[in-house]
Amino acid sequence: MNATQTQNEDGETVRFDGAALKLDCGVTLETLELAYRTYGTLNKDKSNAILICHALTGDQHPAGDNPLTGKPGWWTQVVGPGGIIDTDKYFVICSNVLGGCGGSTGPQSGNPETGKPYGLDFPVITIADMVRAQNLLIDHLGIESLFCVIGGSMGGMQVLQWAAAHSDRIFSAVPIATSARHSSQNIAFHEVGRQAILADPEWHGGAYYATDAHPRKGLAVARMAAHITYLSEAALQRKFGRNLQDREAISYGFDADFQIESYLRHQGMTFVERFDANSYLYITRAMDYFDIAAENGGNLAAAFNGTATRFCVMSFTSDWLFPTPESVNLVRALNAAGANVSFVEIESDKGHDAFLLDEPEMHATLSGFLQAAAQARGLENGGRDD
Amino acid sequence: MNATQTQNEDGETVRFDGAALKLDCGVTLETLELAYRTYGTLNKDKSNAILICHALTGDQHPAGDNPLTGKPGWWTQVVGPGGIIDTDKYFVICSNVLGGCGGSTGPQSGNPETGKPYGLDFPVITIADMVRAQNLLIDHLGIESLFCVIGGSMGGMQVLQWAAAHSDRIFSAVPIATSARHSSQNIAFHEVGRQAILADPEWHGGAYYATDAHPRKGLAVARMAAHITYLSEAALQRKFGRNLQDREAISYGFDADFQIESYLRHQGMTFVERFDANSYLYITRAMDYFDIAAENGGNLAAAFNGTATRFCVMSFTSDWLFPTPESVNLVRALNAAGANVSFVEIESDKGHDAFLLDEPEMHATLSGFLQAAAQARGLENGGRDD
Repeated sequence: MNATQTQNEDGETVRFDGAALKLDCGVTLETLELAYRTYGTLNKDKSNAILICHALTGDQHPAGDNPLTGKPGWWTQVVGPGGIIDTDKYFVICSNVLGGCGGSTGPQSGNPETGKPYGLDFPVITIADMVRAQNLLIDHLGIESLFCVIGGSMGGMQVLQWAAAHSDRIFSAVPIATSARHSSQNIAFHEVGRQAILADPEWHGGAYYATDAHPRKGLAVARMAAHITYLSEAALQRKFGRNLQDREAISYGFDADFQIESYLRHQGMTFVERFDANSYLYITRAMDYFDIAAENGGNLAAAFNGTATRFCVMSFTSDWLFPTPESVNLVRALNAAGANVSFVEIESDKGHDAFLLDEPEMHATLSGFLQAAAQARGLENGGRDD
Repeated sequence: MNATQTQNEDGETVRFDGAALKLDCGVTLETLELAYRTYGTLNKDKSNAILICHALTGDQHPAGDNPLTGKPGWWTQVVGPGGIIDTDKYFVICSNVLGGCGGSTGPQSGNPETGKPYGLDFPVITIADMVRAQNLLIDHLGIESLFCVIGGSMGGMQVLQWAAAHSDRIFSAVPIATSARHSSQNIAFHEVGRQAILADPEWHGGAYYATDAHPRKGLAVARMAAHITYLSEAALQRKFGRNLQDREAISYGFDADFQIESYLRHQGMTFVERFDANSYLYITRAMDYFDIAAENGGNLAAAFNGTATRFCVMSFTSDWLFPTPESVNLVRALNAAGANVSFVEIESDKGHDAFLLDEPEMHATLSGFLQAAAQARGLENGGRDD
């Protein structure tokens, strides 16, 4: 396998050629590109690397500015110089997931067999495939062992997959607001989103890249439905309630009379500017398929038996997409596997999205866990060489 | 105003002509048709009538067979000869709501000004408008005072509107799994459904009646999203979990691998056979607009001040669409208004749809309440003349 490194203003891209990645579905991707970004400096022991895994619609830009949108990265609350994940100390890596639309190989990439974008000919991928791709990147960067793998939501699924498949390679793991398997209700919401995309005639069976079309309306509906699940009822009531949008009275019509309608429409419209509909199909499918226990004969603990990785599991009281019982289930399995695990359920009314927001208790928990883990690994000052 | 009665195999229809109904939006419907069905016999005192109000996608066939689908009515668990709402004793009335698609005037009705179906020219209606229409029907049937008004979900909203606007006309009221106002989250889910319909090119701006088109895909997506909200996560996990549909292993594709996907797709597909997309728009809007407190300067209790109606309020522990705090809020207001009110939160893992299902505690509560109310009204044997 041959690796080629390129750099552009969006970050780095590495291209692996020659039977690059064998997928769970049986297909082998001959070529694999991974777009990624790093922050900070790798120490000479290569022991201070933290991999951040992004969520369904995230990207490789947790910190700094996102060069595509010009807006701050999605986790600047947590990652940055002097931050909770301090890029002055740690070498932070984040890559766009396999199947994504931020530069990594996905359904919009060129299919080597046809020279045209894959579309629906792209093989269906899994969370484990995403992690296999990240594993290649870590090899490529010359890192033997990651100090920590951290992520929320689908990012947390990747963290758990790292711990299940490559425990020897990760010193510590922080799965946040996640689960070891996607629930029936969550599959249901994903299916609604996919059907909304498939119903859009602009989808063209997934082959819309050749035209100017993009299933904007379908993708916007998918995003609107999903977005409701990211927030709690309490947060919606507090932020929007039944407040009217730029009007004194209801219009007796189908305009966005209510602020919540206007907000959701805006979420849908802006999302389609930055995300690919086929990527949405593939990544939601990967999440649906995620079930670590099933991979281990129904025994979740067996996936983590004998692990030396230190875990910090976090959930949020008002998260109804990945509610606390999912984390409790995970923590029980980790305990049964004899793992070193701490668990904090954080009081918050912000719903699932709390992990992306200003949540002091989450920040304090993460900060404390990283400090203790750094000490345990003998990383003075986070491992910085100076 | 002139009323014309017709009967067909689906039930009865009454047509009111001549400034039939002045709506909240300011428009007056010159002609109003209401399709309804009755069960049992009105006693000579006309004191044994129970009005049942149906939910968003319900119809005028709670008991017996539904002539359109050939299936049992939607509330045969509760309504029928010898049933909890005993049609051997009580005279039971149920009408298709204004705006519906079961024979009552709605967007698919002929617009007298154009001779064509209204489509989006149909005026936007409210829950209060639906109740005004029912009020006309009760007049037409020569009933001065209803023994009880009963309904769940949007049916419960109608019950509350009856109590707020026509308390002198209802002896008792049973609002189940409902609220005195639609929450921000519920408006959000409705907006997703509406946008799915509006995104379907077969919707043709609401004017699809002239063609063979019907926004089937959009309406199916709307139904799928809504259907998730009718069930609890626990019920989905218990019924479907991550079980696969007619296969041994995942397909690595976008087929309905999981039972929950197959179930949802089926719900969507069958719904579009029996429901009109524009009716879905109008009725969801009516629910969004519902807010009894707002009609009374923000004071919910004021809506019920001095009411002599006896209330029985019920909610279900796992209902997250109309969760118990909504009923508690209502019960507090009724108590503050000095109303005679009982309240039961029923333990159930079936979610919002519990009110339509086999829920012995709900049935026992309703049965006991009706017996006591009948006694209080001096209705021996439910008021039957014999």
